[in-house]
Amino acid sequence: MTYEALFESICRKKSYLCVGLDTDIRKIPAHLLKEKDPVFEFNRQIIDATADFCVSYKPNTAFYEALGPKGWESLQKTVEYIPKTHFTIADAKRGDIGNTSGLYARTFFDPASSGMDFDAVTVAPYMGSDSVKPFLEFENKWVILLALTSNSGSNDFQRLDSEGASLYEHVLRTSQTWAGPDRMMYVLGATQASEFQKIRTVIPEHFMLVPGVGAQGGSLEEVSKYGMNAHCGLLVNASRSIIYAGNDKDFALKAKEEASGMQQEMEIYLDRYCK
Amino acid sequence: MTYEALFESICRKKSYLCVGLDTDIRKIPAHLLKEKDPVFEFNRQIIDATADFCVSYKPNTAFYEALGPKGWESLQKTVEYIPKTHFTIADAKRGDIGNTSGLYARTFFDPASSGMDFDAVTVAPYMGSDSVKPFLEFENKWVILLALTSNSGSNDFQRLDSEGASLYEHVLRTSQTWAGPDRMMYVLGATQASEFQKIRTVIPEHFMLVPGVGAQGGSLEEVSKYGMNAHCGLLVNASRSIIYAGNDKDFALKAKEEASGMQQEMEIYLDRYCK
Repeated sequence: MTYEALFESICRKKSYLCVGLDTDIRKIPAHLLKEKDPVFEFNRQIIDATADFCVSYKPNTAFYEALGPKGWESLQKTVEYIPKTHFTIADAKRGDIGNTSGLYARTFFDPASSGMDFDAVTVAPYMGSDSVKPFLEFENKWVILLALTSNSGSNDFQRLDSEGASLYEHVLRTSQTWAGPDRMMYVLGATQASEFQKIRTVIPEHFMLVPGVGAQGGSLEEVSKYGMNAHCGLLVNASRSIIYAGNDKDFALKAKEEASGMQQEMEIYLDRYCK
Repeated sequence: MTYEALFESICRKKSYLCVGLDTDIRKIPAHLLKEKDPVFEFNRQIIDATADFCVSYKPNTAFYEALGPKGWESLQKTVEYIPKTHFTIADAKRGDIGNTSGLYARTFFDPASSGMDFDAVTVAPYMGSDSVKPFLEFENKWVILLALTSNSGSNDFQRLDSEGASLYEHVLRTSQTWAGPDRMMYVLGATQASEFQKIRTVIPEHFMLVPGVGAQGGSLEEVSKYGMNAHCGLLVNASRSIIYAGNDKDFALKAKEEASGMQQEMEIYLDRYCK
């Protein structure tokens, strides 16, 4: 999906919501466990219920890997089921030396190899340029690079100062020499909404993938006010607050209500701040 | 496996060789492709041929993931096949927020969940403490944290100076508050052998997993001279130089010769520097 197509989808849906499919088999409603593939069945119903209100889906690979090969089958089926109108993100946080990152790229971008065809994959920046570039060799596919994450551990290294800039700012600056805003996004944690103004001076055009709104806290209005640019430039992720809004037979309806509520709020902020 | 058991195995084998099972289905001998599971069959023969000369095996997950669910089945079978006397490392370079890293830990350490039971997993440090600690909750299991990698991109961020120390030194220092040398190792790239003296002042007791000897260059003697401590403290990895030493029906024999040659060299260095 192109930058323009993503923005067009945001304008049409009046939403920049990304639904995180962090589907934990230990947390899904009990009645689904009798299904042949409970994880996929949960995802299928969540996708059907929320597709009108979001522009993107982001399964986190850890939840699928933990189940072994059958988890990967659930992930395959899930990404295949997501409507092609939606931007799909493999939240995998991969990264390795060049030839090995090339294999991770095939995992998520080459259906002939792995059976999966995501639009984007999250990548960890620690190993530098040659760990990221192999993902960029796939046409129309995106890298979403970790910059400032929303967890407490982000303070351990991401904010270390070097020559007057935090490590995460070095990541933002250096990685811009690898690809432009049409191929790269950044993970920027929502618990630091006040920093978004400063971040926007470094990456005025890029999309940011913002976790940490919803169950992890963080204010959607603050993120939108300080993070939005003229092409929206935001994908705001909510996982647990949507997919576990209910835990009974009406879980999909509860998820729909939650996603719809976020979309309505986003419609207001798009009118107010997207300019 | 405990620190003591690993050292005991090194003394008995007179080897600190780790064989990297970076098995690329596009590179294995053609006659194996008619097997039901060519990747596992390749690994099985490599393991049979090299087990006497190494103390550890390290499959890199990217090579298996790229093949989808059937790749994970090959990985499962491989880790199950490796003799229990050998230290098994999932070279996965994972790391995510706490609850999600917990799922990655289950992937590699909890056979009831994923079918796999490795001794150790490589973890990326960028997201900090809560991305690493969930792996340490599994008894007798190890985290091998990326510090200084052997690829060219390691210069982008790992050597950024902050308060007089490189980022990778901050990783070494900070992470020592999370676990001791009995539970944590570090990836330290062999292309900077001269730095090992300095690194040993920061982590005198820890094991280092050293990639980049063999196909990626790097001198085994230099690594051993400057990196070894009184408990050896080294696992030196070789992947391509061993597993692709031959590319015909005698590939396992060629791998055996290569592994045996490294073991003989290691025996000399253990005598010379392990004190």
